[in-house]
Amino acid sequence: MFVFMTKLMLKTLQKVNTDKPPIWFMRQAGRYLPEYRELRAKAGDFLTMCYTPDYATEVTLQPIRRFGFDAAILFSDILVIPDALGQKVRFETGEGPRLEDLNLDQLSLDHLHDHLAPVYAAIGQIRSALIAENFTDTTLIGFAGAPLTVATYMIEGRGTKDFMQFKKFLYGQPQEFDRLMNLLIEATAQYLIRQVEAGAEVLQLFESWAGAVGGFAFEKYVIEANQKIIAKVKAVHPHIPIIGFPKAAGIYLKDYMHKTGIDALGCDFTLPLNYIRDELQTIMPVQGNLDPGILYAGGALLDREVKNICDTLGEKPYIFNLGHGIHKDTPIAHVEQALKIIRAD
Amino acid sequence: MFVFMTKLMLKTLQKVNTDKPPIWFMRQAGRYLPEYRELRAKAGDFLTMCYTPDYATEVTLQPIRRFGFDAAILFSDILVIPDALGQKVRFETGEGPRLEDLNLDQLSLDHLHDHLAPVYAAIGQIRSALIAENFTDTTLIGFAGAPLTVATYMIEGRGTKDFMQFKKFLYGQPQEFDRLMNLLIEATAQYLIRQVEAGAEVLQLFESWAGAVGGFAFEKYVIEANQKIIAKVKAVHPHIPIIGFPKAAGIYLKDYMHKTGIDALGCDFTLPLNYIRDELQTIMPVQGNLDPGILYAGGALLDREVKNICDTLGEKPYIFNLGHGIHKDTPIAHVEQALKIIRAD
Repeated sequence: MFVFMTKLMLKTLQKVNTDKPPIWFMRQAGRYLPEYRELRAKAGDFLTMCYTPDYATEVTLQPIRRFGFDAAILFSDILVIPDALGQKVRFETGEGPRLEDLNLDQLSLDHLHDHLAPVYAAIGQIRSALIAENFTDTTLIGFAGAPLTVATYMIEGRGTKDFMQFKKFLYGQPQEFDRLMNLLIEATAQYLIRQVEAGAEVLQLFESWAGAVGGFAFEKYVIEANQKIIAKVKAVHPHIPIIGFPKAAGIYLKDYMHKTGIDALGCDFTLPLNYIRDELQTIMPVQGNLDPGILYAGGALLDREVKNICDTLGEKPYIFNLGHGIHKDTPIAHVEQALKIIRAD
Repeated sequence: MFVFMTKLMLKTLQKVNTDKPPIWFMRQAGRYLPEYRELRAKAGDFLTMCYTPDYATEVTLQPIRRFGFDAAILFSDILVIPDALGQKVRFETGEGPRLEDLNLDQLSLDHLHDHLAPVYAAIGQIRSALIAENFTDTTLIGFAGAPLTVATYMIEGRGTKDFMQFKKFLYGQPQEFDRLMNLLIEATAQYLIRQVEAGAEVLQLFESWAGAVGGFAFEKYVIEANQKIIAKVKAVHPHIPIIGFPKAAGIYLKDYMHKTGIDALGCDFTLPLNYIRDELQTIMPVQGNLDPGILYAGGALLDREVKNICDTLGEKPYIFNLGHGIHKDTPIAHVEQALKIIRAD
C-alpha cells in the first residue's frame, strides 16, 4: 500500500478509509488548558504570542502532548492579516479584538511577508518540534480567515452581533468593498502559499461569518472569494489539502463544496448527521461536528453524541472535530472522555 | 368572490394570489422612528411601554400612520413571558435585557394572565384604534417568542453570543430543561390563545435562535416545541393563521414547515430567493426576506434587491418583509424608497 507511511489526517483527506478517524478540535490550543493560561500570563499580550515563534510553537504543541491529537493547528489569529496590511489590531483581555479605523488608502501588501515572517518561522519550528518530540503522525494545519469574515472585523473595528456597519459598507459602497475584498483575497492567498512553504501540511479557511449574508453577497464574497484564494494557492501547491469551514452556510453548502475547490468540508454543529452523511460526505470528506456546548456540559449525553457522530459518519472518510471552537471553561476531563470514546469506537 | 371583503394580509395567508403583496417590517414600531423615540423618552422604561395599553397602542399605530403597512404588529417583547412566570426582567438602555437568576421552583403559571392583562387590553385597544383611524385593511399580528429562544435569555440572564450557559443547562440537565420547556410551551400557548381572543388576527412565533442548536435538540426543542404550541392554539382557534420564523434554520426548514403546523414561513435574509421560490413557497406562503442591512445602506442596490424579491416571489402568495428586524439607524427615506418599489412593481 503506497499510503502506508502517510499520516492519518492526510490519508483521510486523500479519501482513504481508515479504521479510526483523525481527531483534532478547533481552538484546541487555548484557554481551557492550564498550561496555556500560564504561558499567556507570562507573554502578556495575545498578539505577542502569535508573533513570537517560541510561544506559538509551545502553545501549538501543548494539546498534542496532552491529548495526542492527530493534527496540530498553528497558534495564530485570523486578524494578523489586517494587522499585516497596516490596520493595527490589539486584543483587550476579556473584550476581544479592537482594530483601528479602516482606511483603504493606507492598506498595502508591501510589508505583508515581513510582518508575517514570525508566523512562517513558527510553522517551521512547530514541524521540527513535532518530529523532535516524536509526534511523527501529527499533521500540521495552517489557516487563515476567509475575506468576508476578516472584513467584518476590519469594518466594524471589533466583533459584532448585527454586522450593520459591515453591511452598510458592503451594500452601500460596493466598489470600495470590492477593493477591500480583492486586497484580502490576494493577501490571504500569498499568506497561505507561504504557510505551505514553511511547512503547513493542510490548510483550513475559516469563513466564520458565512451566515451573515445571503444571495449575491454570499455567492460573490463567500463562494467566489474562497474559490479565488484556493485557485491561487493550488496554482502554486496543487496537492495541498484545503478544508473549508463556512459556518452557518446551511442551504449554500453544496454550492460552496462544488465551486470553491476545497478538499474537505468543516461542518458546524447545527448540521444534522444524516444530512452530512447522505448529502455532504458523498461529495468529499467532512470534518465535525460535535457541539462545543455538549463537550462543555459533559455527562452521559456527551458519550451518546460522540458515539452518534462516529457511528453515523464512520463509513466514509471523516475527521472528528467540534462544530465550533472549544469553550474556554471546558473541563479537561470532558475532552478526555470524548477522546476515549472516539478511539474505542 | 367570498374573499372580496378580506384583508390583503389574510388573503395571502389563505393562499390567495393578490396583485400586490401585503407588506410589514419586523420591528416596524421601533427606534428608527422619531415619534417612537419621543414616546420612549416620555415613558422612560421599555417594559412600561409594553405594559401600558395607551403606549403600546400608540407605538403600534405609528408605522401604520406613516407608511400604511398592511399589518400592524403588537408592540411588546418576547420576554414578557419569563416576567409573567415570575423571573423578573428589566431593560437597561443601550444594554439590552437583564433577567434575574433562573429558579425553576419559583416559576408558575398562576399569575400569567393577570400579569399579561395589559397586553390583552392593548390588543383590543389597537383593533379599535385601527378602525377609528380608518385602517380597515390593516391586519393585527400578535406574537410570542418560541420556547427555546425565550429559554436562552432565561438561562443566560441576557443576550448571548455563544449560548454556552444555555447549552450547559440543556445538555447537562435535560430533565430540568424539559421542565422549563414544558412550562414555556404551556405559557406560550395560553398567551397566544388569549391574544386571539383579545383581537389578534394572525400570530407569529419568533424562533430567533433556531440556529443555536442542531440534531436532536433542534428536533425536540424547536420543531416539536413549536408544533405543540401551535396544536394547542389551533385546538381552540382552528382558523388563526400562524407564521413561524425559525431564524437560521437552514437545512431544517422543510422539516419545520411540514411538522409544526404553521401556515406561513418567515424567511431570514440568508435564504436564496430561488430556493425560497422553488423549495419553500411551493409548500406554503412565505414572508421575507430583505436584509435589513440592505435597507440600512439604501441606494441603487436597495432598489435592485427589493425588485428582485418582488419578481422572484411574486408568482405565488407571499408577504413582503425584512429577513430580520429593522435596524434602529435606518433612514426613514430608505423605508419609503422600498415601499414605493414594492407598491409600483
